[in-house]
Amino acid sequence: MIRTEEDVINYIKSNIKTTSSNVVKSIGDDCATIKVAKNKYLVITTDTSLLGPHFSKDYSPYEIGYKCLATNLSDIAAMGCDPKYIFMALTIPKLESNWIKSFYKGIKKLTEIYNIALIGGDTNRGPLSVSIQVIGENKHNILYRDGAKIDDDIYITGKLGCARAALMITGVKKYKKEFGLLKKYLHLPEPRIDIGINISKFATSCIDVSDGIAKDLYNITKSSKCGADIFIDKIPTHKLLKKIIPSKLFYEVLIGGGEDYELCFTANKKDAKKIALISKKYSLPITKIGLITRNKLRYFDNNKKVDICLKGFDHFSE
Amino acid sequence: MIRTEEDVINYIKSNIKTTSSNVVKSIGDDCATIKVAKNKYLVITTDTSLLGPHFSKDYSPYEIGYKCLATNLSDIAAMGCDPKYIFMALTIPKLESNWIKSFYKGIKKLTEIYNIALIGGDTNRGPLSVSIQVIGENKHNILYRDGAKIDDDIYITGKLGCARAALMITGVKKYKKEFGLLKKYLHLPEPRIDIGINISKFATSCIDVSDGIAKDLYNITKSSKCGADIFIDKIPTHKLLKKIIPSKLFYEVLIGGGEDYELCFTANKKDAKKIALISKKYSLPITKIGLITRNKLRYFDNNKKVDICLKGFDHFSE
Repeated sequence: MIRTEEDVINYIKSNIKTTSSNVVKSIGDDCATIKVAKNKYLVITTDTSLLGPHFSKDYSPYEIGYKCLATNLSDIAAMGCDPKYIFMALTIPKLESNWIKSFYKGIKKLTEIYNIALIGGDTNRGPLSVSIQVIGENKHNILYRDGAKIDDDIYITGKLGCARAALMITGVKKYKKEFGLLKKYLHLPEPRIDIGINISKFATSCIDVSDGIAKDLYNITKSSKCGADIFIDKIPTHKLLKKIIPSKLFYEVLIGGGEDYELCFTANKKDAKKIALISKKYSLPITKIGLITRNKLRYFDNNKKVDICLKGFDHFSE
Repeated sequence: MIRTEEDVINYIKSNIKTTSSNVVKSIGDDCATIKVAKNKYLVITTDTSLLGPHFSKDYSPYEIGYKCLATNLSDIAAMGCDPKYIFMALTIPKLESNWIKSFYKGIKKLTEIYNIALIGGDTNRGPLSVSIQVIGENKHNILYRDGAKIDDDIYITGKLGCARAALMITGVKKYKKEFGLLKKYLHLPEPRIDIGINISKFATSCIDVSDGIAKDLYNITKSSKCGADIFIDKIPTHKLLKKIIPSKLFYEVLIGGGEDYELCFTANKKDAKKIALISKKYSLPITKIGLITRNKLRYFDNNKKVDICLKGFDHFSE
């Protein structure tokens, strides 16, 4: 029976050819990787964003364009690569000049920052849906989920939980001011391209936090065949969260909530100084939140072991 | 004002970066082309197929999978290239095992014939929509729309008008038998990969007939800055068309109807013998239907000039 996205992936893997001679990484990471020349690789990702699961009616067309591209760029960042080309398959209910212009301004904001060329796509009429494909190139190594080594440190860029908190207080009158402060984390996430490229010289594994750090870290430990100890109290978040999130939901928002689009990566202890320098260079906190271990994924809060049972997001679960 | 797909493309071209150092062809052909090494190029296409404009409720999930991929492969064929990798962004209202399995059998049919690997994608819940990206490689030259030369011959593979005729008699009781014979042209078109690769050694331009030969030829003459004389009576079609299509609609179906996914290409007269051999090798008619001229696109039927005024398909025109 096919009940979840994972079942679909498994069905494809068992029934359809998913690799060939130049395919370095197929289905199962943030991007696929193909070798195109000696030491030259392309990483490719494709994602569809829809009204409902990916953005709501509160988003301006600018924010829809920006976020749909940002989340795809985040997959390239997670591979430690440099985005070069994008393809845009846009389905919209009707052609409205202002909507189109504003949507493409959101796209342009990011193509300008990262010097990306939009080189193809198509436009159709139908229920709003944005499918974007991004092709990136490696500058140094390519980062995968399966390279974490025992005793590696686990790092996270930026803050976690802010996007989920913003989602929870969307439209809640008494938190209007707080929503104003947190909205950018949800509507306009920053893909961590520069950090990804810089850490690609030494990091052992990397993933972007799109389904909640708990699920994403689980994916790293599963792919790398290892465990991890995570220190929840070390995970940086916004000070507003303690104020607006009920304490029983705090873990869920901090580590179960998706859409932060920060990078979670692992590195040997000897690289701690390099990481501090990168953090300083880009004025972005990069925080050690745990340790790769031999087996089991364990969570601690102020040195006390806590049991976490979080389901990652699945588009087809009720 | 943005009113048509073309307006969207023009808006993008004037406002967003659409090229960079290794981009050989950006927006405006069947595929984009990027150079990845000496004499090595990738051609990339992305297309979304939707219930309504691209397939109807009469299609089985197998046919939906097959056709969505076939039409994308046809874009690679039009470039004279070899498809290597695909990415699948599938949006479906619900996960139904039988539907998924049948859909992917349609995909598999083509990945097996052409030895293609499915290396990425995602699955979401929402109104049925299939976005596929295909990456191909050049074997010889890459064919574009803009290479036609004056006095070149114009050729077409296979037969035209059959898909449109099948669409017109879908569900019409008295033509049930005829629909049975023509359905395959509409639901299960054959991408002309082998022909594309073979003609890529010498053809001067190429396009796949997806919007009706009239619009597609117009695109070749516009891109190549030339004209053409087309001999409508030379265009091969199925003998059933004369029977089921009212004569006043005959031109519309033959040259205005899209979705034939045959290749229309131009070649120097000296290559006529090579073309005959390719036609024989693949047991597929390749027919000369016209001539590239200095200017104007003119149509003749049995040596009599005819005026053709056909609008190509636009997803946003009423």
